[in-house]
Amino acid sequence: MENRIITISRQFGSGGRTIGKEVANQLNIKCYDAQIIEEVAKASGYAETFIKENSEYTTYSSFLGQILSARDYQGKTPADQIWIIQKKIIEDIAKKESCVIVGRCADYILKDKNILKVFIHSSLDNRAKRIVEKYGETDKDPIARLKDKDKKRSSYYEFYTDIKWGDATNYDIALDSGTLGLDKCVEIIKSLY
Amino acid sequence: MENRIITISRQFGSGGRTIGKEVANQLNIKCYDAQIIEEVAKASGYAETFIKENSEYTTYSSFLGQILSARDYQGKTPADQIWIIQKKIIEDIAKKESCVIVGRCADYILKDKNILKVFIHSSLDNRAKRIVEKYGETDKDPIARLKDKDKKRSSYYEFYTDIKWGDATNYDIALDSGTLGLDKCVEIIKSLY
Repeated sequence: MENRIITISRQFGSGGRTIGKEVANQLNIKCYDAQIIEEVAKASGYAETFIKENSEYTTYSSFLGQILSARDYQGKTPADQIWIIQKKIIEDIAKKESCVIVGRCADYILKDKNILKVFIHSSLDNRAKRIVEKYGETDKDPIARLKDKDKKRSSYYEFYTDIKWGDATNYDIALDSGTLGLDKCVEIIKSLY
Repeated sequence: MENRIITISRQFGSGGRTIGKEVANQLNIKCYDAQIIEEVAKASGYAETFIKENSEYTTYSSFLGQILSARDYQGKTPADQIWIIQKKIIEDIAKKESCVIVGRCADYILKDKNILKVFIHSSLDNRAKRIVEKYGETDKDPIARLKDKDKKRSSYYEFYTDIKWGDATNYDIALDSGTLGLDKCVEIIKSLY
């Protein structure tokens, strides 16, 4: 039987990664997230920090991004090269086993496969509360941090997929983790597997 | 205890109304849809057909719409007047009882109440199949009929609410009735009540 993959796209601070890990845990399958970054790092030779900065967020605002946006002889930026490697890794994982994949445009990359596409979101207030609890305070206001992350994540997604990030019609199911609660989200996703 | 309302927004042909009725049936509460139109008709004195044409769809393309878009002494079009009456009726229902309300921007009108906001969608192909089965063939291609209805419904919604229709973040839960199946949608919504 074809492997069954759950892809989770999520707003920063919505608990999407926590939900993905718990779903995988309860279903006794793997959850890919940071692991993918590591594999990308190994396959590409790029340092892991650089990949973290370039793989899911657009680089337009960073000085590093400007230096690194030089194109190679095929016209590809480092971010494009990472996209290609990452895509290959996600396709390989999907061939190998049933699993949960959080982020990384996996829903788009695996769109022709047997996948359950999930989107997790939550209000700015709920997410601000969560990131402060989870990552602590910084100099920057949590709402501003979230807006910045949302903007970068959606730009990256829309640049590589040409699909509007967060549009309900792209997903089998979209859940507000703030109003429904993380446990309820896990339960619903599990029941659809 | 405050009444608990389930609001269902839906793409035309997605089965959202059928899902709403079944949820209400299983929960033993009322489902409001056509009834609202009737109440609007009674309260406003407009003929029911006219309200059907003006209440959920914008009228820009119809000849009737042009005639009727004359504004009254307060600058309100007939569609604006229907909006006001309809809003009042929905608020009254929400005060009276727990129920399901399908369409009519009820999610927006009752946004400060104890509501569960649901969005039901499905691919164009799935919806085309469904409307042909349900309403039969017409001279117009079903895909074109759907696109037209989607456009009108979203224009109406966005005109009166200033919120993007179908954006996942507006709803507690958004479900693809085509990939998940109507029964599964009913089960999930019921479990959240």
